[in-house]
Amino acid sequence: MRLGELAERLGCRLEGDGGLEISGVRGLEDAGPQDLTFVAQERYLSRLTGSAAAAVILAEGWPPADRPALRTSNPILAFAHVLSLFHPAPVPVPGIHPTAVVAPDARVAPSASVGPLTAVGSGAEVGADTILETHVAVGAGVRIGQGCRIFPQVTLRDGVVLGDRVTVHSGTVIGADGFGYARDGRRYVKIPQVGRVVIEDDVEIGANVTIDRATLGETRIGRGSKIDNLVQIGHNVRVGADTVMAAQVGISGSSRIGSRVTLAGQVGVVDHVEIGDDVIVGAQAGVTKDIPPGSVVLGSPAIPHGEFKRRLAATARLPEMRKILRALEERLAALEARLAR
Amino acid sequence: MRLGELAERLGCRLEGDGGLEISGVRGLEDAGPQDLTFVAQERYLSRLTGSAAAAVILAEGWPPADRPALRTSNPILAFAHVLSLFHPAPVPVPGIHPTAVVAPDARVAPSASVGPLTAVGSGAEVGADTILETHVAVGAGVRIGQGCRIFPQVTLRDGVVLGDRVTVHSGTVIGADGFGYARDGRRYVKIPQVGRVVIEDDVEIGANVTIDRATLGETRIGRGSKIDNLVQIGHNVRVGADTVMAAQVGISGSSRIGSRVTLAGQVGVVDHVEIGDDVIVGAQAGVTKDIPPGSVVLGSPAIPHGEFKRRLAATARLPEMRKILRALEERLAALEARLAR
Amino acid sequence: MRLGELAERLGCRLEGDGGLEISGVRGLEDAGPQDLTFVAQERYLSRLTGSAAAAVILAEGWPPADRPALRTSNPILAFAHVLSLFHPAPVPVPGIHPTAVVAPDARVAPSASVGPLTAVGSGAEVGADTILETHVAVGAGVRIGQGCRIFPQVTLRDGVVLGDRVTVHSGTVIGADGFGYARDGRRYVKIPQVGRVVIEDDVEIGANVTIDRATLGETRIGRGSKIDNLVQIGHNVRVGADTVMAAQVGISGSSRIGSRVTLAGQVGVVDHVEIGDDVIVGAQAGVTKDIPPGSVVLGSPAIPHGEFKRRLAATARLPEMRKILRALEERLAALEARLAR
Repeated sequence: MRLGELAERLGCRLEGDGGLEISGVRGLEDAGPQDLTFVAQERYLSRLTGSAAAAVILAEGWPPADRPALRTSNPILAFAHVLSLFHPAPVPVPGIHPTAVVAPDARVAPSASVGPLTAVGSGAEVGADTILETHVAVGAGVRIGQGCRIFPQVTLRDGVVLGDRVTVHSGTVIGADGFGYARDGRRYVKIPQVGRVVIEDDVEIGANVTIDRATLGETRIGRGSKIDNLVQIGHNVRVGADTVMAAQVGISGSSRIGSRVTLAGQVGVVDHVEIGDDVIVGAQAGVTKDIPPGSVVLGSPAIPHGEFKRRLAATARLPEMRKILRALEERLAALEARLAR
Repeated sequence: MRLGELAERLGCRLEGDGGLEISGVRGLEDAGPQDLTFVAQERYLSRLTGSAAAAVILAEGWPPADRPALRTSNPILAFAHVLSLFHPAPVPVPGIHPTAVVAPDARVAPSASVGPLTAVGSGAEVGADTILETHVAVGAGVRIGQGCRIFPQVTLRDGVVLGDRVTVHSGTVIGADGFGYARDGRRYVKIPQVGRVVIEDDVEIGANVTIDRATLGETRIGRGSKIDNLVQIGHNVRVGADTVMAAQVGISGSSRIGSRVTLAGQVGVVDHVEIGDDVIVGAQAGVTKDIPPGSVVLGSPAIPHGEFKRRLAATARLPEMRKILRALEERLAALEARLAR
Repeated sequence: MRLGELAERLGCRLEGDGGLEISGVRGLEDAGPQDLTFVAQERYLSRLTGSAAAAVILAEGWPPADRPALRTSNPILAFAHVLSLFHPAPVPVPGIHPTAVVAPDARVAPSASVGPLTAVGSGAEVGADTILETHVAVGAGVRIGQGCRIFPQVTLRDGVVLGDRVTVHSGTVIGADGFGYARDGRRYVKIPQVGRVVIEDDVEIGANVTIDRATLGETRIGRGSKIDNLVQIGHNVRVGADTVMAAQVGISGSSRIGSRVTLAGQVGVVDHVEIGDDVIVGAQAGVTKDIPPGSVVLGSPAIPHGEFKRRLAATARLPEMRKILRALEERLAALEARLAR
């Protein structure tokens, strides 16, 4: 593809020779003389000099480059788009592999692909253009929308509902029983978990994630939300739209997470709390109570970002404070002794 | 089922019309005019007003309700029981699915169910009324008791032993090698892990959990204990009876956890420590040494609950303490200057 | 095997009767009169008295034992070696199980073993003496070296490369998409993840681990590194040689971990930082910036070990400091009042 054509497709402003032939996209260090590359932040701009790349995606307003460039207000978005052009999503090979085990009353769209050694339970539905890879376990009554991609070794337990264009990575378990018990003296009696899980359109879920079914009612992940690997989502949790959770986050039962929220890595959220829209929770924080919309919180227990920084700074000076305190004590004692004379 | 009959079966005191026909159990908001609902805590009682439920499970001693009620000293337990009545556990469909791969010398009880695409290794035993769902990997010499339920994509490695009525959710791996190496200069040499794992009766294990086999001897989970998703249990760990671990807990090798212990979410426990019976460890805490029975600990490193609260409160006042300290310093300097005159 | 022969094979110094017949290796408590046992640390030496073991592995320099002994400078290494003698690694049964699904153009070495219900994708290569157990999902173009062992339910996604003698435990996912999105207003647009993962020789990876493929280029785990269960490794991370990560560690995208590094349990590392060679990071620490080689760090955010201990000690005395501060204030006020008279 020529650079000029790429500029047009990506909606970028062309700087330099539009006739350049571009055959791929690579990182600064790996790019060859037919590759397009990109620079994510202005401070990395100096690394461009050593790259063999033919051309580069740059933000508008950054200094002139030493080679042809595609200028845009959002270089990362342009980078995402150009990668999609050179690495298009796979087209499903329609049909059910002979080693797959599909219940007679399951409904698999003719354009869908069911991979080797995959099982589809009774009454399940698989939508058009959806790909189930190998070793997927689809329970009874599961409903999977159109254009979904379910990677190997995923488990969708009975009654789970997936919208359209949902991606689920390998090893993830959706719809296992929530963790609910009643105490009978010293023993625990299981509370049957008979609710379901609903994953809305355009959600992507990483590898080895667990999203539990509701006790009653539903656990729900809102449209467009993105969940990284090894995240735990408890029963009856509700997550809004366009929310992002980094790896190893854990959310306890019945908590509500708003829309456009960011939970950084290893964050924990206790049960029955509410995190408002547009909240940012820093890595390893522990959320123990409701968080108002738009807040930025850090620490365990989580507190507002500014307060966390103040306490951290004060803690760093604690050993010094102890010294000052001892010195004051001595000076005071000296004064007292002098006045007692 | 009539409300009066339910009252009798659950051992509840009937309040109101026992002839009411009840067709299901639902949460306050979802319940319809033929449903029973329940209120978990007195402070949620006001939400009952807006519910369409026909009847409600309530604790003895709470105020009168606006509709027929089942009164009990333990509403959550009654709720668990009534859910079991309306959603009974599945009865296994006896037999081995034609796509399952069962070793000729494995012994599968005639009443057990072995699902599609499941593999059972040499010498393994599967007890009566046990259900292995799809894609289960049962290693050589594994012993599974009666009435167990093993969900899709579970791995039970060679020699693992499960008691009766054990539930293992999808993606969980029991009996992978413990993490043990000897140093040979700068390199690591694997210590073969040749012990086993024993899971006692009535244990329930969540999804994507890992429980490692012992180096020598055994890793053991005591009767009735409940383990949530994504928990890690290292080699040679011993867990007592009726202990509960929330999601993402990690226990390092050779540590001992007592009975009736509660480990909240994301707790970490170092190796070779002992946590006594009836201990409660708060979320995200890090246990670095032995904890006496009956303690409540918090923080990383974990300290007694009261001490943690005191330190947290003092830390919150640190910025203020710094101000007081500065003020004292000035006042003292003023006194000193005055006396020096 | 006779004790004298064992001494020779392990390179240990024999103390006592070399003609003793040894039939196995067991822990102190479980060992019988034909077993060899071992003591890991001198402080556990007293436990030897109650053991029925025939002989024991001990460090040179420890006090005399009450039975025949093998003396060595590194008892744990000798223990690892003797376990390997009595529990040799399984020899693969060459061949492809009839229920495995192997693409026609995949190349499986004749000495390799492909287990039941395992799938090997188009163009994949499986080296000599490698064992793929049951339910393994090997993607298109994957390259697996010689002498590897891949346990049940592992997923190796398209294009993943494994060196020789690599062990991957059950449920682990290598090569799932990295967590990368561009913002388009409020929505997230996926950045296609088209790089790969390379696992070098002699690496061992625990159960339910996730190692993401690179956006571009590669994610790489260096020779001889050992990774425990439930660890998350983000896209484009690079890990050096002989590095050890305990369970539930999480490393965010593009960070670089040196060689001979130790990350203790539940450690988190933010994106784009560099941890130098020979660094030790304590359990539950949160690494937020570059760590120089050879450092020992603790805490969240992680700080040097000595500083952490000082702050922790000072925090423990905070309630006491508050009391001292109040007392000083009173004494100072008393002085001021006296001088004002």
